[in-house]
Amino acid sequence: MSRTPENLISQTQTALERVRETAPLVQSITNAVVTNFTANALLALGAAPAMCDIVGEAGPFARIAQGLLINLGTPVPEQREAAREAVSAANEAGTPWVLDPVAIGALPIRTALALELRELRPTIIRGNASEILALAEAGTGGRGVDATDGVESARDAAVSLARRTGGVLAVSGPTDLVTDGERFVRLSNGHVLQTRITGGGCALGAVLAAFASVDEDPLVAAVAAVSTYNIAAELAAERAPRPGSFQIAFLDALDEVSPAHIAARMVIA
Amino acid sequence: MSRTPENLISQTQTALERVRETAPLVQSITNAVVTNFTANALLALGAAPAMCDIVGEAGPFARIAQGLLINLGTPVPEQREAAREAVSAANEAGTPWVLDPVAIGALPIRTALALELRELRPTIIRGNASEILALAEAGTGGRGVDATDGVESARDAAVSLARRTGGVLAVSGPTDLVTDGERFVRLSNGHVLQTRITGGGCALGAVLAAFASVDEDPLVAAVAAVSTYNIAAELAAERAPRPGSFQIAFLDALDEVSPAHIAARMVIA
Amino acid sequence: MSRTPENLISQTQTALERVRETAPLVQSITNAVVTNFTANALLALGAAPAMCDIVGEAGPFARIAQGLLINLGTPVPEQREAAREAVSAANEAGTPWVLDPVAIGALPIRTALALELRELRPTIIRGNASEILALAEAGTGGRGVDATDGVESARDAAVSLARRTGGVLAVSGPTDLVTDGERFVRLSNGHVLQTRITGGGCALGAVLAAFASVDEDPLVAAVAAVSTYNIAAELAAERAPRPGSFQIAFLDALDEVSPAHIAARMVIA
Repeated sequence: MSRTPENLISQTQTALERVRETAPLVQSITNAVVTNFTANALLALGAAPAMCDIVGEAGPFARIAQGLLINLGTPVPEQREAAREAVSAANEAGTPWVLDPVAIGALPIRTALALELRELRPTIIRGNASEILALAEAGTGGRGVDATDGVESARDAAVSLARRTGGVLAVSGPTDLVTDGERFVRLSNGHVLQTRITGGGCALGAVLAAFASVDEDPLVAAVAAVSTYNIAAELAAERAPRPGSFQIAFLDALDEVSPAHIAARMVIA
Repeated sequence: MSRTPENLISQTQTALERVRETAPLVQSITNAVVTNFTANALLALGAAPAMCDIVGEAGPFARIAQGLLINLGTPVPEQREAAREAVSAANEAGTPWVLDPVAIGALPIRTALALELRELRPTIIRGNASEILALAEAGTGGRGVDATDGVESARDAAVSLARRTGGVLAVSGPTDLVTDGERFVRLSNGHVLQTRITGGGCALGAVLAAFASVDEDPLVAAVAAVSTYNIAAELAAERAPRPGSFQIAFLDALDEVSPAHIAARMVIA
Repeated sequence: MSRTPENLISQTQTALERVRETAPLVQSITNAVVTNFTANALLALGAAPAMCDIVGEAGPFARIAQGLLINLGTPVPEQREAAREAVSAANEAGTPWVLDPVAIGALPIRTALALELRELRPTIIRGNASEILALAEAGTGGRGVDATDGVESARDAAVSLARRTGGVLAVSGPTDLVTDGERFVRLSNGHVLQTRITGGGCALGAVLAAFASVDEDPLVAAVAAVSTYNIAAELAAERAPRPGSFQIAFLDALDEVSPAHIAARMVIA
């Protein structure tokens, strides 16, 4: 790995400041369960959400957005077509985009779409270990949205996908793994309450898209997004020990989290 | 009634513990307004939500889920077809399923679908009195999602439906009525603030599906689900007297509610 | 202007009391991001939400609803057709309705639909300055949902639209402008945190529909809705300085806001 942990911490601080300064417009084509939480997470962080996901508008919007998320959690036919349209436009316009292959493996429609989108060079792919294994066609997926595999068991699949796409993989778990196929960063922030609310992983996809708009190196962007997001979760968990109030405290913490918190808390394992 | 209240209290405690131990995967095909609250309610309680509601995936998922909810609050065409697919698969796989015929009566599309699904032997049907009367074709429905009939006025309709479906009816109101057509249990927990938030009734449908996965007697499962849910609402209302904060405290209370709370608070009228 | 500020304050107090007394049934055909917040905002205020937005039911429901909102934030094909059906029925039944042309301008599908609905005499049109300019075909729209134009720059467009539709325009911004093309009211309540949560503007559309059901003069209804809503936001911001907790405090404040708060706080600029 060519970068030292010191650089990643300062690069994370800089990326967070740039998100706040530029308020990137992040288009999110995401699932029906988490649209509200995702939009509020982006707003709390300082970005500008736009959940534009209909055919005929998803493409035009992807040309003016600074980042794009494709999350496959509830992919109705209209949204599947809108996702294709948006990715095509994003690639033409140079808009960075994130693929979150939610719960692929056993479910045929989203799995086929994820494999199709995988070939279109996503800037960042985020998923749990079971989803990453399934996307690399090396596993059968998890239990709904829950991983049944450990992060390190998806290491080779992540490398394979990174080399295939030319992008970055962010594998979520107790310790997150971020890799572009050559560099490997393990990050150990976050809190178990993130798994007790819906959208805990999905909103990270949108945050990854926001950070991808402010740093040209998607590995740095992914490290910065994962760390900022997970440190905010730690701040929230210290104040709200149960899931309902944690969800709200998490949004407050995404507003509050600062470069000083990054310096004090970021753990590169 | 063959069971004594003592049994129902201990059975409710056991069912709650089994939900927490098994974390049942509950597939929810539900309305757009409450997907987030429903998923968070299941997670807070200790179950695992999956809002898989698209054609081509709803059926396969219903075979691996431990419980299924069909809620007719915003039944777009894709969701209507997914509901049919999921119910058919659930019946083949033996997955217990809950029907919530939201606001049927005056609205033609959901009413026709509810009458169709009624014939497919739902394990539990949950609704307010006006919805249950409409589902038994004995009334014209309420005012949107609000009941205009009292729970006891729906008693005969509930019995008729229970005998027709072979399942259990849970009629929601200030005092809830649970019946399988032969046994009758009236439950008097809960708080009026549940009617001041959206999803107060809809999320109960998903909780019923979670409990139906851990007790083979759907009457016991329904009693346990209704009581646990409504006792959590009481805990929340003691801490949060207005609807916004009540909604959050309710999620916290679903995480906190324990067999001791059941013992101390469960009211069988 | 023929009315004095004294009258508008007492008319706002009266309208708020009538909303609480009559609990108007407000049908909201709105975007996927804010359905939950919108329904909860209506419930907190004392109205009755119904998010009935499918073809075949949207029309029948618009005949029994007391008010109707058409919000174009995520207009999938089913919802576009449902919107046409609902507006047609509302106009036949005399149900007041509100048009919120979210993010029109650059996005072709919603823009075309907004221009079509504009011709159907909405009772109230609500939008930010960029949206109002685009609806009057005098501007190119904003940046996603964010206005890039000041409220006063949309004054002439608002007058033109009011005269064309025979209805009222409510232009949102730091100071809101409400006009029927002849009378002009500027209102200066509210808090910047409203722009840091999703649905801050969209839920106002539903509140406008609720107030339009209790006052025959849509200018008075719009003034009362905007002021009540924004005063609730001020109450919330005093208690919750960050966006997550602000969202919840805002719902609590919509429940709490009273004629006394109106008297003490309403600012007519």
